[in-house]
Amino acid sequence: MEEFYKEWEGFEKATWVKEVNVRSFIMHNYIPYDGDDGFLASATKDTKDLWKQVLELSRLEREAGGVLDMDTKIISTIVSHAPGYLNKYKEKIVGLQTDKPFKRALMPYGGIRLAERACRENGYKINPTVKEFFEVHRKTHNAGVFDAYTPEMRACRSSHIITGLPDAYGRGRIIGDYRRVALYGVDRLIEDKHEQKETTRSAMYSQVIRNREELSEQIRALEDLKTMAASYGFDISRPAKDTAEAIQWLYFGYLAAVKEQNGAAMSLGRTSTFLDIYAERDLKRGTYTERQIQELVDHFIMKLRLIKFARTPEYNALFSGDPQWVTESIGGVAVDGRHMITKMSYRYLHTLTNLGAAPEPNLTVLWSVHLPENFKRYCAKTSIETSSVQYENDDLMRVTHGDDYAIACCVSSMRVGKEMQFFGARANLAKCLLYAINGGVDEMTGKQVAPEYRPITSEYLDYDEVMRRYDEMMKWLAGVYVNTLNIIHYMHDKYCYEKIQMALHDRDVRRWFATGIAGLSVVADSLSAIKYAKVKVLRNEAGLAVDYEVEGDFPKYGNDDDRVDSIAYNVVHRFMEHIRKNHTYRDSIPTTSILTITSNVVYGKHTGATPDGRKAGEPFAPGANPMHKRDSHGAVASLASVAKLPFRDAQDGISNTFSIIPDALGKDGGVFVGDISIELTDGCIDCGAVEDMEVNDVE
Amino acid sequence: MEEFYKEWEGFEKATWVKEVNVRSFIMHNYIPYDGDDGFLASATKDTKDLWKQVLELSRLEREAGGVLDMDTKIISTIVSHAPGYLNKYKEKIVGLQTDKPFKRALMPYGGIRLAERACRENGYKINPTVKEFFEVHRKTHNAGVFDAYTPEMRACRSSHIITGLPDAYGRGRIIGDYRRVALYGVDRLIEDKHEQKETTRSAMYSQVIRNREELSEQIRALEDLKTMAASYGFDISRPAKDTAEAIQWLYFGYLAAVKEQNGAAMSLGRTSTFLDIYAERDLKRGTYTERQIQELVDHFIMKLRLIKFARTPEYNALFSGDPQWVTESIGGVAVDGRHMITKMSYRYLHTLTNLGAAPEPNLTVLWSVHLPENFKRYCAKTSIETSSVQYENDDLMRVTHGDDYAIACCVSSMRVGKEMQFFGARANLAKCLLYAINGGVDEMTGKQVAPEYRPITSEYLDYDEVMRRYDEMMKWLAGVYVNTLNIIHYMHDKYCYEKIQMALHDRDVRRWFATGIAGLSVVADSLSAIKYAKVKVLRNEAGLAVDYEVEGDFPKYGNDDDRVDSIAYNVVHRFMEHIRKNHTYRDSIPTTSILTITSNVVYGKHTGATPDGRKAGEPFAPGANPMHKRDSHGAVASLASVAKLPFRDAQDGISNTFSIIPDALGKDGGVFVGDISIELTDGCIDCGAVEDMEVNDVE
Repeated sequence: MEEFYKEWEGFEKATWVKEVNVRSFIMHNYIPYDGDDGFLASATKDTKDLWKQVLELSRLEREAGGVLDMDTKIISTIVSHAPGYLNKYKEKIVGLQTDKPFKRALMPYGGIRLAERACRENGYKINPTVKEFFEVHRKTHNAGVFDAYTPEMRACRSSHIITGLPDAYGRGRIIGDYRRVALYGVDRLIEDKHEQKETTRSAMYSQVIRNREELSEQIRALEDLKTMAASYGFDISRPAKDTAEAIQWLYFGYLAAVKEQNGAAMSLGRTSTFLDIYAERDLKRGTYTERQIQELVDHFIMKLRLIKFARTPEYNALFSGDPQWVTESIGGVAVDGRHMITKMSYRYLHTLTNLGAAPEPNLTVLWSVHLPENFKRYCAKTSIETSSVQYENDDLMRVTHGDDYAIACCVSSMRVGKEMQFFGARANLAKCLLYAINGGVDEMTGKQVAPEYRPITSEYLDYDEVMRRYDEMMKWLAGVYVNTLNIIHYMHDKYCYEKIQMALHDRDVRRWFATGIAGLSVVADSLSAIKYAKVKVLRNEAGLAVDYEVEGDFPKYGNDDDRVDSIAYNVVHRFMEHIRKNHTYRDSIPTTSILTITSNVVYGKHTGATPDGRKAGEPFAPGANPMHKRDSHGAVASLASVAKLPFRDAQDGISNTFSIIPDALGKDGGVFVGDISIELTDGCIDCGAVEDMEVNDVE
Repeated sequence: MEEFYKEWEGFEKATWVKEVNVRSFIMHNYIPYDGDDGFLASATKDTKDLWKQVLELSRLEREAGGVLDMDTKIISTIVSHAPGYLNKYKEKIVGLQTDKPFKRALMPYGGIRLAERACRENGYKINPTVKEFFEVHRKTHNAGVFDAYTPEMRACRSSHIITGLPDAYGRGRIIGDYRRVALYGVDRLIEDKHEQKETTRSAMYSQVIRNREELSEQIRALEDLKTMAASYGFDISRPAKDTAEAIQWLYFGYLAAVKEQNGAAMSLGRTSTFLDIYAERDLKRGTYTERQIQELVDHFIMKLRLIKFARTPEYNALFSGDPQWVTESIGGVAVDGRHMITKMSYRYLHTLTNLGAAPEPNLTVLWSVHLPENFKRYCAKTSIETSSVQYENDDLMRVTHGDDYAIACCVSSMRVGKEMQFFGARANLAKCLLYAINGGVDEMTGKQVAPEYRPITSEYLDYDEVMRRYDEMMKWLAGVYVNTLNIIHYMHDKYCYEKIQMALHDRDVRRWFATGIAGLSVVADSLSAIKYAKVKVLRNEAGLAVDYEVEGDFPKYGNDDDRVDSIAYNVVHRFMEHIRKNHTYRDSIPTTSILTITSNVVYGKHTGATPDGRKAGEPFAPGANPMHKRDSHGAVASLASVAKLPFRDAQDGISNTFSIIPDALGKDGGVFVGDISIELTDGCIDCGAVEDMEVNDVE
């Protein structure tokens, strides 16, 4: 491609002209903004009217018991629905998932019984012909997975030592590079995909055949994307010519994705600085005013707030606010040293003022010490006023991911259009420790779940013996866990492939094989207790260790005490070493995360008493947090313990839920500006919670 | 399994009791029969009445233009239809593909457009919901294949250098071991499949996941098989208890296969000697008379004659008699030296007398010099009277396949339940020779199809130069061909998996990767002409070699002349060497066949003039036959040439169409008893003909 489209006039040429390369476009064209928020425009009348309409629909939806309308017959695809509008005459950015706002689409590719249950529990009945088709002729992801599971995998799932597996919901964690639609137009992207297909390997090994078929599916999805946009009256075969089109084209790309997939996390990417380039050109040309641009952004964000899926009550019960993790990553610093804050960064956050606070889209600031002071202050102000901003450590992530990554879901970082993640939920390492002590017998059910390794029979636990057995048990657990995920992702690709999202990726995508850890602080403290205090085992009549008495004090994780922090470090490191020993689907790169923000309660519920003195059924700490009240040396020490965890081993993210009373952030314009190398979660929703659903489409 | 079912009383115990092993049962229980046909019983009144009904329906079908009724909405599965009967009160063996005789089922898994066209061309319209469902949500084998094909593969397909690929019809060539249903009952088979699933490899590589999923599908298919039989009032969860049940159980297994798959060849296996064991027990017990047993066999064979599929007119135009290749292999010799002729071998052939001659089922005698004289005479007599018996060389095939193989389609031999074939149609080696001469340019269209290798520019062809270029071109052709087949079989497994047929196989199936050769005698004679005579090239204005003048005589294939027979041998051998250099799907074992019986005409039509003096468009010889009239040294010399071909390289079969005027076989009871090591085709239908269909579901 050498063509320079007329829509590109005024942009600086670079590599992006010759190849699909959005980062190159951004780096050569964006203008860092160091000023303050003084330029921001307030909501227009149309914006206010539309938002009022949304609030009214939300009210009606709540009154209707959570769902206002559902499709029961039309199976959602990119082109399945006629155009839908809030108010055709007031909307500046158009496009709905179905033909009506708040009407939830029918998406059975993941699992027909789940789709059916989502309908039924909301008072709807799925069309019997559709049901029969999917039960008999069109297999689903969920059905495929359960065909391949081993009894051991099922046992691990039932005993909650492996939890939240995406076998009954869409794996999500794939961010299409929706900016490409705006910058290149769809025809150029199709051309690129044809080139990719022409250059697959020529010996037809099964993985080559799979690649070729997937590329064909992607090309069809791009054609569908054009058709869908055309139904709204837009020709997106060519590049977007101004801010309005750029936002609209980009949104159509995203809309196609949420029409096709109901992944647990359907994140948006890193779009604000990209769009600012169009806005700056329009402001310079005088084709748009600031007020018009803000209106476009407001309407765009409003649309993102409307994204909804048909979920089961089990899914909803664990969440508040019907979360989709429409995560947008804002700011950060370029690898050339320039910060990436633009006016558009402000405009995105300003929607929280113009439309009011909201958890969606999940606006996430990629925080750096190098962000401009004005923006830091504006963030703090917006956080204080709206409690709706998430912050993540760009200085840490930039090292491995560069300056064009984005966050999927809460904390999963990936280069946009170049990397994706096979989401992997979590292994319960606290329960694993109890299995090590009990020779693989589950402490809650008495069932033999893990192999019949030798149990510990001594009255007092010996640190070296426990560590030896724990290491063996972690090795076993890592094996079952990775193999379970291999099945899930094989079947997701087979029965529920993310066509349009992958169409907005490069051909040779790096795939992260995500795993996750739950109960880290329980494990660290338990091992510390065994090592530094005396832990007596209390056994039931069957000889099963069911409780522990701790005699003496011991160092606790969360106090910046290396004696225990190093244990936490080693557990993470060692578990990842075991994970890495296994084959991972599609040559994906194994990593792990230490997440979960609310589901720690449910994990605890299913886990017996632990040697740290925690009683059976008591909650775990969330994510990588120290156990509640045990971090007795203050906030900095608590955060320092977390910060010691090996990011190299847990590149999928380490989350620490850190509550600060609002006054600490300064109500009078004083700011809290941190550079702590962990996520500050605020308004973030727990992506680990799904795991506690007893959702099983097959059994 | 150690259980000895009550249904097995009277059978000799052996390995077959402990494991699924039909051969062991046969070897320990069958009684070779050396007597003559004197015991055979004629057709009963019910048999005659039913057959009259079939003939009447056939007449009505012909009058209706070839199809009497078609399903347009119900998608065929094992359990999709209510029971169907010819005459419930007269039928001793029941079961139809749909709910009515002569009603063809709707089978869109292979390709929705093909299914649609088969309906449309017969005056039916496929249900629009079904159509949309398969176009949008339920991909088919055909759609998958065309998503992965390369432009080169499409070009080879269009130019007819690779032909008849099973990308637009079911590959067939899989024989379920239907005897297992009778011997073990379905519950035991399900139990066995569960054991197989429990013992897959434990690291979840994609092929292990695929195996586990397939085993789950197989188990469901077996459950469906029970359900289908139950709808006819039979509990086939347990073993069959007598001859009637054994035939009925076996037929239900086969019926399930033809309800699920419309493969080009849906062969039955090797069932007669197996069933004879039940008949002998019943005769001994006095529970059945010979007349009753023959009636059961007659009704069984009648059902097999009713097997029909919805085909397109292109498919039908090339065949006569609506062929299905319900091939049944009869006789042969056991590896312990005993011949395997039983009374049941006679009874099967006797249906040709009781019901009249018919091409289906394709009754194939596994011929050996060691067959009893009486049976040889009976075969000859039946051949003379009915022209409906196929003969194949057991003495040759037994060496590699043992004594429990059967023929799929015409000549493809495979161990029953232990081996299957990925059918691969044919490469046109005559056209390949022309490509070698023209540097990859197609002589009919002038298009560059193969790579731009250096063409031959001399006036007279030089043997060494031609051979060098031909070898390179064969290497290229073998590569494209095998890779094309890799795609086809990957997609067939993915979108049109043979669940019930594979359920009646062992877990670790040996897969033959079949390829095929067309135009062998043309190539042999052409190369002989180049070597032993002088061949002048006539070129058109574009410099393309389009005709040849042969000066002088040359040895011709088919005269037992080693000078040319060795060329034929070498071409087959060399092509197979090139085939073997390529990766084959699922670690299948490459082999080839030299078949085609009528489609040689169409091959010739698409192939330009050849250096043997054959003019453009003139027919090839069928299969491995010498060119018509060139075998001037008599029948034995002609057959001897064919017999020299390397069976090791062409284990999928070498076919020779050999016409003998009926008197030569003796009208007065004199016999023709041969032991020629090639197939004698009589009443056999050409399985290579499909290749000439311009059926392309996608383009």
